[in-house]
Amino acid sequence: MKTCEIISVGTELLLGDILNTDAQFLAKELAALGLCVLHQSTVGDNHDRLLELLGQAAKRSDIIILSGGLGPTPDDITKEVACEFFEKELVLHGESLERMSAYFTAKGLVMPETNKKQAMLPEDCVVFNNNNGTAPGLAMEKDGKHILLLPGPPRELKPMFYESAVPYLKRFSDKVIISHNIRTFGIGESAMSETVADLLECPNPTVAPYAKDGEALLRVTAMADNEAEAEKLCVPMIEEIRARLSDYIYGIDCNSIEEAVVPMLIENKLKLATAESCTGGLIGKRITNVSGASKVFDCGIISYSNEIKHRILGVSKEALDKYGAVSAEVAKQMAKGALKISGADIAVSVTGIAGPSSDGTSKPVGLSYIALADKYNVWVKELNTSRKDRDYNRFVNSSNALNMVRLYINKML
Amino acid sequence: MKTCEIISVGTELLLGDILNTDAQFLAKELAALGLCVLHQSTVGDNHDRLLELLGQAAKRSDIIILSGGLGPTPDDITKEVACEFFEKELVLHGESLERMSAYFTAKGLVMPETNKKQAMLPEDCVVFNNNNGTAPGLAMEKDGKHILLLPGPPRELKPMFYESAVPYLKRFSDKVIISHNIRTFGIGESAMSETVADLLECPNPTVAPYAKDGEALLRVTAMADNEAEAEKLCVPMIEEIRARLSDYIYGIDCNSIEEAVVPMLIENKLKLATAESCTGGLIGKRITNVSGASKVFDCGIISYSNEIKHRILGVSKEALDKYGAVSAEVAKQMAKGALKISGADIAVSVTGIAGPSSDGTSKPVGLSYIALADKYNVWVKELNTSRKDRDYNRFVNSSNALNMVRLYINKML
Repeated sequence: MKTCEIISVGTELLLGDILNTDAQFLAKELAALGLCVLHQSTVGDNHDRLLELLGQAAKRSDIIILSGGLGPTPDDITKEVACEFFEKELVLHGESLERMSAYFTAKGLVMPETNKKQAMLPEDCVVFNNNNGTAPGLAMEKDGKHILLLPGPPRELKPMFYESAVPYLKRFSDKVIISHNIRTFGIGESAMSETVADLLECPNPTVAPYAKDGEALLRVTAMADNEAEAEKLCVPMIEEIRARLSDYIYGIDCNSIEEAVVPMLIENKLKLATAESCTGGLIGKRITNVSGASKVFDCGIISYSNEIKHRILGVSKEALDKYGAVSAEVAKQMAKGALKISGADIAVSVTGIAGPSSDGTSKPVGLSYIALADKYNVWVKELNTSRKDRDYNRFVNSSNALNMVRLYINKML
Repeated sequence: MKTCEIISVGTELLLGDILNTDAQFLAKELAALGLCVLHQSTVGDNHDRLLELLGQAAKRSDIIILSGGLGPTPDDITKEVACEFFEKELVLHGESLERMSAYFTAKGLVMPETNKKQAMLPEDCVVFNNNNGTAPGLAMEKDGKHILLLPGPPRELKPMFYESAVPYLKRFSDKVIISHNIRTFGIGESAMSETVADLLECPNPTVAPYAKDGEALLRVTAMADNEAEAEKLCVPMIEEIRARLSDYIYGIDCNSIEEAVVPMLIENKLKLATAESCTGGLIGKRITNVSGASKVFDCGIISYSNEIKHRILGVSKEALDKYGAVSAEVAKQMAKGALKISGADIAVSVTGIAGPSSDGTSKPVGLSYIALADKYNVWVKELNTSRKDRDYNRFVNSSNALNMVRLYINKML
């Protein structure tokens, strides 16, 4: 298996002015090609440091992918340094000069003199045309080491990668890597890992646990000669994990719980309504992230005060006085109220203290109540994240509300 | 000036499964501390490669910041490898064990045995408490080289960086870099840049334009011996930009338009209500992102169908039939309806076609109407992004609604 590394060039990356999305894009695409990325580095537009890094990279990797530093200004030196390292001369590439000139003409502009630098390309390189900007990319080889130069702007890099770099790299990919993400809700990363501890030792497919935003997931990754073989390796592993964690798994290869729940609602012909206090519209927002949500969702009430909870959702003044806005009873009445006003089949509600500061009662920040009502019953869950992180609390609250819908449909409430 | 480098540890980064936002965050913060970041690297959870990288890093940098690989599972080895490199023993840190145990107890859980590994810390290190998770961070020193270990999840890394790493690193900073972000709404990046073209040439402070999610911003960055000097350099530049772009500027150093609008509402003692169709709760969610929003926001209606628009918001059947749900008239009636049902002082509404697919009418994807009503008037804005990107359209719609509130308060509608 050929090893590959990614070098991102740009002082703006070192200063943190821009997020390095190129490295992620390249890493993912190279993995999909079956190329093994073992290092990623970022270095500024600096001759000595880039040259040194190329030396290290060429020792440990077969293929080096550089992005950035192909611009027309004097501080763009990636191509020059790469040529110095590979001992190649830069010569004018007529076709690229014409393409660049045409690019400016199409925009009603005259090509600035400085851009000509971009048409100077190493002798006997493979030129990657840029259909979305001026700087051509390229690939060159010496002593069995390959180096690819790509422009930094994602809107130029991505199409060039697909159009030119992938055909160039195909010859090196002998293995294919495929991953599947098994997403769970309601179990922590540690507990999940303990349940599948023996599987985490498996070499192929590998199984790796991750945690994010109050959820835990397992990633199953197989390597094989082709896609079909890799998929075949994944199947029994996914089945085994499914058997052990079934109640917690909300989806495989979906990106979020709402992407799992909306299709479940559609399939079961259930209309959902929401009544939100501390989440302030986030549950509605997440449901309507999913295109087609209008089939199952048409009404949400954001009731951020006691008065609105009472007047629009019909929460009783007694419950508000006796238990407070953040209480199981109020959550239940909110869900029932949303059900009534919307005419939906089920309704979820959230009331809680998202923080960072307390609501003036003795209740802790991070406490919330999440309820689900149908025409006959109402269920409520108490949750305490013990965190003062407003964003986290609101997100986890909304996830729990969505998960309650999943549990309801699966008759697990 | 001390040199610093960032090493991100995690196989999921090498595979491109997650975006490396930690590296950007750290790079920006280290630059702000006047520390010079010359290298960033990413390596997997691999003993040999991490050890080799630490060797290279220690040769060229004074301070090494590692993030990731502090979790409870066996593949988390950052701390172990760093200790091997620095020849330090891991010993049980009682206080951290207690903190972790309390963290689980507060959630009503028992700490899994595997988590104990996280309380094993190198002898004589400086412990960084984790107030948002289990893994403590730490700093240790040997032969004048400093190494800092931080957890990978941004929710844990960011607060720990501010609370513990910054105080630790302060002693190394000599120059100070300060940035201010001037945020605009309603002007494109090119038009904004043209207005301040001469200022973009200034060496100190520098002025750089950025565009994101339908907004343009200018970043003013000054470098000086101390914070006061750097601030002094920024002041006249910010004033000049303010003079040229005043109508478009909604805030300086605020993170979003809602962070500007909520305090404006509070100051003007205005209560706001929302009526959302295609944004599905996003406006409410953004308003309630801001702690203290309950002073000015207590009611939002998500009306995702014609029926709910009519029945709850009182939009007339005639308007829905004659103009369709995505129309100026319906947007106006939605805003008026939200005003009435909520009893607020002003109300905003959005109705539009977020995409990716059409709503079955001849109206284009990306079209939307945004209205604002007070007791006497109603204003409406037509917007067409010409994009089929659902997330983008919804976000830009919600930003426009929030911006309308700003314009209303500034009497610019």
